[in-house]
Amino acid sequence: MTDVIKTIAILGGTGDLGTGLARRWAQAGYSIVIGSRTQEKAQQAADDLQALMDERGVADISVEALNNEAAAAAADLVVLTVPFSHQLSTLELVKTSLKDKILIDVTVPLVPPKVGRVQLPEGGSAGQIAQDFLGEDTRVVSAFQNVAAHHLQEGEALDCDVLVCGDKKVAREQVITLVEAAGMRGFHAGPIANSAAVEAMTSVLITINRQYKCHAGIRISGLAE
Amino acid sequence: MTDVIKTIAILGGTGDLGTGLARRWAQAGYSIVIGSRTQEKAQQAADDLQALMDERGVADISVEALNNEAAAAAADLVVLTVPFSHQLSTLELVKTSLKDKILIDVTVPLVPPKVGRVQLPEGGSAGQIAQDFLGEDTRVVSAFQNVAAHHLQEGEALDCDVLVCGDKKVAREQVITLVEAAGMRGFHAGPIANSAAVEAMTSVLITINRQYKCHAGIRISGLAE
Repeated sequence: MTDVIKTIAILGGTGDLGTGLARRWAQAGYSIVIGSRTQEKAQQAADDLQALMDERGVADISVEALNNEAAAAAADLVVLTVPFSHQLSTLELVKTSLKDKILIDVTVPLVPPKVGRVQLPEGGSAGQIAQDFLGEDTRVVSAFQNVAAHHLQEGEALDCDVLVCGDKKVAREQVITLVEAAGMRGFHAGPIANSAAVEAMTSVLITINRQYKCHAGIRISGLAE
Repeated sequence: MTDVIKTIAILGGTGDLGTGLARRWAQAGYSIVIGSRTQEKAQQAADDLQALMDERGVADISVEALNNEAAAAAADLVVLTVPFSHQLSTLELVKTSLKDKILIDVTVPLVPPKVGRVQLPEGGSAGQIAQDFLGEDTRVVSAFQNVAAHHLQEGEALDCDVLVCGDKKVAREQVITLVEAAGMRGFHAGPIANSAAVEAMTSVLITINRQYKCHAGIRISGLAE
């Protein structure tokens, strides 16, 4: 299936990463549904987004606020940006609504307090855990785990790339379109098993951020031959 | 201990990565000992290196050929560039010679035939396996796993960065000096456990190489704030 993606739900859409992606996609013309544990919490993020777009002079954006379940049901594609500790409980709530849809999983399996130390979960990676839990009816694609939310909040093109993992190439392709709509380059990075590399890299980037006092990302080099 | 590193042994030094590093370090003034399973095999690589340096007009390089055991004994610092399947057997041979030295482990735990798929080993990573096997008397630092050997063979500065993992900061620092001597930027990337991220990234880069027909590497971005 190649779906036409018009409406994107962002579950856990009130955090830094979720609101950053919402801004960029709203500005690119997608209809955004911000999901949160309660409709009220989502509404606050939606109001903030509307106010920011007004300020930037972006007319006619479409943004709605719902609880996570209703948000997932209302969208063509769903993005999960909750902490690892809430990943499975959130997916349980929305599993039936994800049937035949793409789920973009942004979950990083950090283990506090040592978030700068790679500690991958039993299932291999958060992306793999999501795919195993949701089964074949949902195409899980992991992406955006290495993007500093700090930079996402800014308006301009971003100096970092997005590695896109998923078992279905067509689904990865659709996610790469969304990566580009958000102002970054997206790369086919292999099956969802490869999400382990990208998720683990987040701990390395956290280590680098502390050491070098920055908001680091990664770039793929060596492309032009 | 802060050792002065003058002599570097490269075990498995007849492969593309090992010979690439040897060239760059020889040119930077380090004494190189190329190690291989037999002294004869090592000699061929040493002769090739000498011929290349003559061709480039680089006088006075110091390069020697020995079997792996003798090479490890002769050096201040040892670099391991053998396939994952030979990692532990090689370390067993040289363990006593590695006492009080830094081992730079370049091993990537690829599982043929699916080398583009992340399949991390039971021990977490090759770097962690080496550190666990060698114990506290040897400081294991992993590095160079994401560098395309193809580019290393070229003469110029490289468009890729090196993530340097190890439990001792002073040891990482010494390895970063060697990374820079080889023409790249090196970054403190955390404890040896974080080698999992870097090793896994190699499979992602292999996937990208196939998909985009290139010799990809990674660059850390977002440093200048």
